[in-house]
Amino acid sequence: MADPWQECMDHCLAVTMEAGKMIREALKKDISIMQKSSPVDLVTETDQKVEALIISSIKEKYPTHSFIGEESVAAGAPSILTDNPTWIIDPIDGTTNFVHRFPFVSVSIGFAVKKEIEFGIVYSCIEEKMYTARKGKGAFCNGAPIRVSEQKDITKSLVLTEMGLRTDPEHFKASMSNIQKILSIPVHGIRCPGSAAVNMCLVACGSADAYYHIGIHCWDMAGGAAIISEAGGVIMDVTGGPFDLMSRRLITASSTAIAERIAQQLQVFPCGRDDTVG
Amino acid sequence: MADPWQECMDHCLAVTMEAGKMIREALKKDISIMQKSSPVDLVTETDQKVEALIISSIKEKYPTHSFIGEESVAAGAPSILTDNPTWIIDPIDGTTNFVHRFPFVSVSIGFAVKKEIEFGIVYSCIEEKMYTARKGKGAFCNGAPIRVSEQKDITKSLVLTEMGLRTDPEHFKASMSNIQKILSIPVHGIRCPGSAAVNMCLVACGSADAYYHIGIHCWDMAGGAAIISEAGGVIMDVTGGPFDLMSRRLITASSTAIAERIAQQLQVFPCGRDDTVG
Ligand SMILES: [Mg+2]
Ligand SMILES: [Mg+2]
Repeated sequence: MADPWQECMDHCLAVTMEAGKMIREALKKDISIMQKSSPVDLVTETDQKVEALIISSIKEKYPTHSFIGEESVAAGAPSILTDNPTWIIDPIDGTTNFVHRFPFVSVSIGFAVKKEIEFGIVYSCIEEKMYTARKGKGAFCNGAPIRVSEQKDITKSLVLTEMGLRTDPEHFKASMSNIQKILSIPVHGIRCPGSAAVNMCLVACGSADAYYHIGIHCWDMAGGAAIISEAGGVIMDVTGGPFDLMSRRLITASSTAIAERIAQQLQVFPCGRDDTVG
Repeated sequence: MADPWQECMDHCLAVTMEAGKMIREALKKDISIMQKSSPVDLVTETDQKVEALIISSIKEKYPTHSFIGEESVAAGAPSILTDNPTWIIDPIDGTTNFVHRFPFVSVSIGFAVKKEIEFGIVYSCIEEKMYTARKGKGAFCNGAPIRVSEQKDITKSLVLTEMGLRTDPEHFKASMSNIQKILSIPVHGIRCPGSAAVNMCLVACGSADAYYHIGIHCWDMAGGAAIISEAGGVIMDVTGGPFDLMSRRLITASSTAIAERIAQQLQVFPCGRDDTVG
């Protein structure tokens, strides 16, 4: 039987390429910034335009499919994953990087059917690196196969995460203390590149050995999750339990040993879910 | 009068290019890691080979010049800046990144005469970005002029720094608390790319608005210092006083306002000097 979703993936690749071009064009012009939930939660016209481009292009071809898009959700659309074929879209992952022209900015799209991710595409569009993965068929960067480092020794690992101000001082304290605990294991280092989807791809291609995050969203993770899994990586919840796309948290790593070691260190604080109905 | 140091700069550019090629070649092979002062202070054969290549090539042409090279100092050479023309060399800035093939790895060379930096070259050799600056003649990336963002409002800034384990628990605590204080101003975000010289260049080309570091070395800063200054940026000590190349600390920023605001926040802890004689 032919792969039922290959056509969707081909279409996704084409529209992602177009979205990346739109972002690179926007970087040449003035960028005007709007605030979302707080002074550090930014959005631009380009985020909204790119999401509209992606969704309208896919809707035209697949009118019965569902969508969870970062900017649509911000505008009030529901963020519930059903069994229906669903496109989970982050038009710009790393909006703060985009605003500053810091070189990690990506388009991230994951495609789920019956709540399982079938393929993922992450386009790091300043670096011009196109990461792709179809379930069971491996992960690629610009067409070349990629693999995780397979490092098992956490003391030889490079770990990715992100730091940000949190409105709850207890959560802020916990997130800073988590960083301190990981550094103290010790590890080779911690890097904070500023795009969750790119972080997952950096682990997938072996440039880092782990990435953890509490407070992320499903659209940051859906594309990268396929890529990590197909690159031989591990993805789990921050408690060490199974990964839950709507849980707003993850650990991803080159090996179970490293992922579990990080889970042991982390103090988990509540961050809500993406699929809670207000 | 012709520029007395232009020929040195031309030679520097050629040897830096060659060094970058050597590093890219090494990335294709297995990398064997040695420890320096601690499990998180790494060095490889490539660091040593690249420094030997650079110094021998320059020495042949300029036998009377002095050198301060990271790996030569690690091997016992003095690290004293005199009035003699001095090449200050980091063969690989971002050795941990190099080991992991994380994409920020650079060759950094600064050239000082009478303790003043005349030119600087930083080659981010995976990205293939060659940053250059000659005193009074502007800063360039791959030949195109670069400028800092000129952002003056710290609450709209992207700040770079590096986190690492420190042997003294008090210093470790202070360095983590500094990050927390900067995030709380608030700023748009903090990024940790893992190469000091690249961080300085990211500020120089406007992709970030500030970079601060306590515990850095003169070879990490000498090349970037020329580039930042010529790109219109500010460079000062973490106390807000004048920058001192041998002091192992710096703030660099797109504007005095941002640099001073960061200086106000930082709790300074002792990190020694590069020019202390054992
Ligand atoms: Mg986004
Ligand atoms: Mg070095």
